[in-house]
Amino acid sequence: MQYILQIDCPDQKGLVHKISGILFKSGLNIIENEEFVDHVNNHFFMRSEVVGGLNKAKIISKLSSVLPRQAHIQLHEKKKKNIVVLVTKEYHCLGDLLVRHHFGELNANILAIVSNHLELKEFCGKFSVPFHHISAEGLERSEHESKVLEIVNPYKAEYLVLAKYMRILTPGFTKNFSNRIINIHHSFLPAFIGAKPYSQAYNRGVKLIGATAHFVNDTLDEGPIITQDVINTNHKNDAKMMAKAGRDVEKIVLSNALKLVFADRVFVYNNKTIIFQ
Amino acid sequence: MQYILQIDCPDQKGLVHKISGILFKSGLNIIENEEFVDHVNNHFFMRSEVVGGLNKAKIISKLSSVLPRQAHIQLHEKKKKNIVVLVTKEYHCLGDLLVRHHFGELNANILAIVSNHLELKEFCGKFSVPFHHISAEGLERSEHESKVLEIVNPYKAEYLVLAKYMRILTPGFTKNFSNRIINIHHSFLPAFIGAKPYSQAYNRGVKLIGATAHFVNDTLDEGPIITQDVINTNHKNDAKMMAKAGRDVEKIVLSNALKLVFADRVFVYNNKTIIFQ
Amino acid sequence: MQYILQIDCPDQKGLVHKISGILFKSGLNIIENEEFVDHVNNHFFMRSEVVGGLNKAKIISKLSSVLPRQAHIQLHEKKKKNIVVLVTKEYHCLGDLLVRHHFGELNANILAIVSNHLELKEFCGKFSVPFHHISAEGLERSEHESKVLEIVNPYKAEYLVLAKYMRILTPGFTKNFSNRIINIHHSFLPAFIGAKPYSQAYNRGVKLIGATAHFVNDTLDEGPIITQDVINTNHKNDAKMMAKAGRDVEKIVLSNALKLVFADRVFVYNNKTIIFQ
Amino acid sequence: MQYILQIDCPDQKGLVHKISGILFKSGLNIIENEEFVDHVNNHFFMRSEVVGGLNKAKIISKLSSVLPRQAHIQLHEKKKKNIVVLVTKEYHCLGDLLVRHHFGELNANILAIVSNHLELKEFCGKFSVPFHHISAEGLERSEHESKVLEIVNPYKAEYLVLAKYMRILTPGFTKNFSNRIINIHHSFLPAFIGAKPYSQAYNRGVKLIGATAHFVNDTLDEGPIITQDVINTNHKNDAKMMAKAGRDVEKIVLSNALKLVFADRVFVYNNKTIIFQ
Repeated sequence: MQYILQIDCPDQKGLVHKISGILFKSGLNIIENEEFVDHVNNHFFMRSEVVGGLNKAKIISKLSSVLPRQAHIQLHEKKKKNIVVLVTKEYHCLGDLLVRHHFGELNANILAIVSNHLELKEFCGKFSVPFHHISAEGLERSEHESKVLEIVNPYKAEYLVLAKYMRILTPGFTKNFSNRIINIHHSFLPAFIGAKPYSQAYNRGVKLIGATAHFVNDTLDEGPIITQDVINTNHKNDAKMMAKAGRDVEKIVLSNALKLVFADRVFVYNNKTIIFQ
Repeated sequence: MQYILQIDCPDQKGLVHKISGILFKSGLNIIENEEFVDHVNNHFFMRSEVVGGLNKAKIISKLSSVLPRQAHIQLHEKKKKNIVVLVTKEYHCLGDLLVRHHFGELNANILAIVSNHLELKEFCGKFSVPFHHISAEGLERSEHESKVLEIVNPYKAEYLVLAKYMRILTPGFTKNFSNRIINIHHSFLPAFIGAKPYSQAYNRGVKLIGATAHFVNDTLDEGPIITQDVINTNHKNDAKMMAKAGRDVEKIVLSNALKLVFADRVFVYNNKTIIFQ
Repeated sequence: MQYILQIDCPDQKGLVHKISGILFKSGLNIIENEEFVDHVNNHFFMRSEVVGGLNKAKIISKLSSVLPRQAHIQLHEKKKKNIVVLVTKEYHCLGDLLVRHHFGELNANILAIVSNHLELKEFCGKFSVPFHHISAEGLERSEHESKVLEIVNPYKAEYLVLAKYMRILTPGFTKNFSNRIINIHHSFLPAFIGAKPYSQAYNRGVKLIGATAHFVNDTLDEGPIITQDVINTNHKNDAKMMAKAGRDVEKIVLSNALKLVFADRVFVYNNKTIIFQ
Repeated sequence: MQYILQIDCPDQKGLVHKISGILFKSGLNIIENEEFVDHVNNHFFMRSEVVGGLNKAKIISKLSSVLPRQAHIQLHEKKKKNIVVLVTKEYHCLGDLLVRHHFGELNANILAIVSNHLELKEFCGKFSVPFHHISAEGLERSEHESKVLEIVNPYKAEYLVLAKYMRILTPGFTKNFSNRIINIHHSFLPAFIGAKPYSQAYNRGVKLIGATAHFVNDTLDEGPIITQDVINTNHKNDAKMMAKAGRDVEKIVLSNALKLVFADRVFVYNNKTIIFQ
């Protein structure tokens, strides 16, 4: 059996020695290991992939006994995550995810797709993934969110993926999924927060356009950034052409972020990510 | 003799035919030619490099006679620009420019270097370029700018290059050099406008850091963007390390922008650049 | 109606003026125009998008009368290309093309998919595109190619797209499709020509891996390059991990090449491409 | 005092625990630590930066006692390397290194510059670094190399940097500097090995040009690759223009490689590099 251990705690001397000692004496084989010390905040992070038989509670208790009291310790079996995908009308991110999912490349099970529109229903049907249409027409934001939660909650998804879900989520919604909602924003954040980033980019005359995958927290487009990338643009492209050109970078950035998150390679600390790739 | 012709005007049918006709009938050989129509604003741009003998006034008058009344026509000999460089304490952009200048690669004559500090004086001395120190100590911003202008003006520079000049210029200064001041900003604008962009970048936890070369206008960091580029960063880099790592992208972005501007490849229109490369 | 005009011929003075004159006098509106002169070979290239009513034969005849005898003139309506896609077992390029095709983004009609294996049949079924399985088992290369041609020819495709078709095509096959077969090779050509480029890349210890879209000619992996891109790799990736990581750059590079080719933006000259984007 | 410890050996269970234990019990503080296991060859690599007082021989002996017999252990004080730079006529890499050196950014002392030509002598003079001209005129390759060694050897340099040194070095020369000569090759190796890579690139019609920094071994352009990067090119650039455009990527790639090597972040194993950055 393969497990992933994630630890973060205030730094102190000898942490690597103590932790690796517990793993070694438990007969576990470390096949990948990475540590990082944030010297600004004096905080220690470590991620290990180990192979062997283990008693989860026992290992965690042993680790707790040698680590600072404030340590976060997570130890889970290496396996696919269960996710629900939220979309609106755009197909490029969803299409990319469904193809990867179909061929077993996503490292996740897409349990369902939820949309506030009907445009993508027929497409999802091809891939035999349940599609739920929850129109926001005539509803208060909170009413709509409640309806979405009613559908989403029973799936007990570990992550929600916003694959171009064009609605702002309120804290009332996001508090249910702390660091468990991943969004793709179609700009190089923090440039062009909010609506119509490509129009903003066109108006500003930038020479690069980008995409940002980030965890969603209470403040719009302010959550911890996971991955970002950019492509060249120039005066020939108006806002519409930028939006078209940006589709590929959006879908690849989202997919790269999901690879990292679903492999338990991402720590969140101080609204930033520490990523062991 | 080699000339560069730059025209921009409201678009209409037949412009390319009319302009190329005048060049052809004047016996000029077009060795490079590019046009662009901004379909959002219905505006036409054209840049031609031509070889041959010509009467400048005559060509311009012929062109005026076939172009819309509002046309801007510029025709100049292809030659090195005269520039003055402003710096503060950082050496990386200045060093790069001086090495290029020394070996004739810059496509410009650096007439002088002006700094509000003394740190780079000795270095400039190696390259035999006049160095003027104008301290801002105890001066009002406008007083300091007046002193800088007193030094700069007699050089009759075509462009001012701000190679990490860490002072904000007021409209009183910039109005003298419309689209003739080029600045390198150490972020991917419009992200992280203003002071300490690397600290801002560190605090936001971005995964790319960048640099932007732009013309300076009345509003801080809002002028037309010429070139931008980014490099990867990650959680291992604090603000200081980002600043170090960013030096190379800053100097290359600035140098790329200067290549384009000094070769008369850049049009400014609606606070954006149209670039024929 | 919208048309695309492509001209290439030995360079001479006044070509732009003559060509644009014919277009102007025919009442056509040029909405995009680009020229290039290859000064090494003294050869002229021009691509125009024009709008208006036109008599194709008449325009071509007028152009011929003013252009050098050796000129190639192509004038066609702007419309989707008809293509056939060849694949083997890998899904990532095909999946990307089928999703784009489904949503009308490909600028081409996929008439059929041909494979020497069965792995992708079920997937193609989802998208209602005819799938032809032509096994190469027990066949001479030429026999297999004949069978493929028998299936392909009746579709009268303008382009064949090799979306990870893992068989070498002989000149007997390719001569039927001069500059009309586009292949994606999973390396930065000319590095790692031939089989198993990722194993070659791993063995050489490169720090970037790439993909190259190119037209197929008589010599393996030697045809004119259309687009290339690379991504970072490092010591952590073995050949298999590189192959996985390379999928995204392969599919995006192929798709970018198809965009250019299907929009008639690509000239082939001296085994190289001139691309007006 | 700050030290860097580099270990590589056949992998076995418990290595991290044993090594970190010795460091911990010696009272050393690990401020940066990275390990990697090459699962293809079952080989372990570890690099640690430690702070504290230590007896070098004692630490190494303790480490040896717990590590496999074949382990390589290197422990050195963190300090600037001593280097000699070899050049021919091109200034861009040398200029970049000298500016960084002047401002203390290079993490190395340039003891001397050796060239087979005189072009760069005056420039080196500005920076007060000894310049040795050793013409190859009329000399056998081995004679010239002997003369170079006579000059270079007394400097006892830890590394030789070939900053566009346009002569092939024979095994008779390179055997003196195993993994201690760093070259910048002006292509994306292994594409375009040998002479005139930009002409080769032009002839092949590539859409990206690159640079590769590598250790020099017995076979031309076949040594372990340290860093590589590429920039876009297109049909507008002939070989000369590519060479000019390539200068910046060459100098940055070389400088990036030196940063890594001089910080003892690079292991060489099986003609590849493992790099902890």
